[in-house]
Amino acid sequence: MSVEQQIKQTLREVADFPKEGIVFRDLTPLLLHPELTEDILNAMILPFKEERIDAVCAIESRGFLYGMLLANKLNVPFLPVRKKGKLPGETLEYTYDLEYGSATVEVHLEDIQKGWNIMVHDDLLATGGTAAAATELMRMRGAQVVGFTFIVELGFLHGRQRLEQYSDKIISLASFN
Amino acid sequence: MSVEQQIKQTLREVADFPKEGIVFRDLTPLLLHPELTEDILNAMILPFKEERIDAVCAIESRGFLYGMLLANKLNVPFLPVRKKGKLPGETLEYTYDLEYGSATVEVHLEDIQKGWNIMVHDDLLATGGTAAAATELMRMRGAQVVGFTFIVELGFLHGRQRLEQYSDKIISLASFN
Repeated sequence: MSVEQQIKQTLREVADFPKEGIVFRDLTPLLLHPELTEDILNAMILPFKEERIDAVCAIESRGFLYGMLLANKLNVPFLPVRKKGKLPGETLEYTYDLEYGSATVEVHLEDIQKGWNIMVHDDLLATGGTAAAATELMRMRGAQVVGFTFIVELGFLHGRQRLEQYSDKIISLASFN
Repeated sequence: MSVEQQIKQTLREVADFPKEGIVFRDLTPLLLHPELTEDILNAMILPFKEERIDAVCAIESRGFLYGMLLANKLNVPFLPVRKKGKLPGETLEYTYDLEYGSATVEVHLEDIQKGWNIMVHDDLLATGGTAAAATELMRMRGAQVVGFTFIVELGFLHGRQRLEQYSDKIISLASFN
């Protein structure tokens, strides 16, 4: 069975969460299946086998899960992007629009080295707003994002189009349209 | 150099965060040093080499980082404990007191199997309130917590005493008194 089929069979669809009319794709059941982890990681890493990756950047908090495994497997630093106010050191911040209101994310300024090639990871690609914000933070320090990895992509929200300006390597393992 | 020395040399102390008079031990610099990861994981796993561990439970969001690596290395399921309202499936919840007010954490009910031996992980042992809450959630489903792992322990907050009722295996890799 392909990785995509395994993911789709394993995840859970929850109706009307977080609000009515939305079918939430819950990825937490994947965490109960350690036998799938190796395939999931390899499927995200393989498309980058010709690239140098200097760090993995991932987004709080579900992005931390496979993001940390990716960094560990690639043997590179891990850069956590967090919601505003949670990182104690000197930070860069970036504010972006949501459907209603806005959100601000931060990264520790001194964690990012100029010239680094960075993989941005999150569990889910929806509108792409958060991944784009993480990318902007990396670029503010002179690092470049060489690609994105996601477990699941909600194609109907067109996040891919939003991220194409940064890299054409937008890897998602399972897609819903 | 011992793991404790490596951790203490690497982490960052931030004065007056999150409020005046508190010295915050920021563990994020460890994430920049993948060469330390293997030693950190081994130091947390070694004390359990005579135990059967069926799952690792870790607490949002910093606990997700090494918690997921521990589950992966042990090749067992990972149980995320999250703040209330973030898990979409049917949950168990537990409310505990903080210095001011209270907090509620949740876990997906059906993720936990009765009789499982569980390691509870978080990055930092402070008062122990959150780790105790995670333990209560596991016990509500008939699982037992066989021990706790933390990167850093703030001994002067006496979290260890709070957790001793559940297990005498309370492993922290670096301690401040």
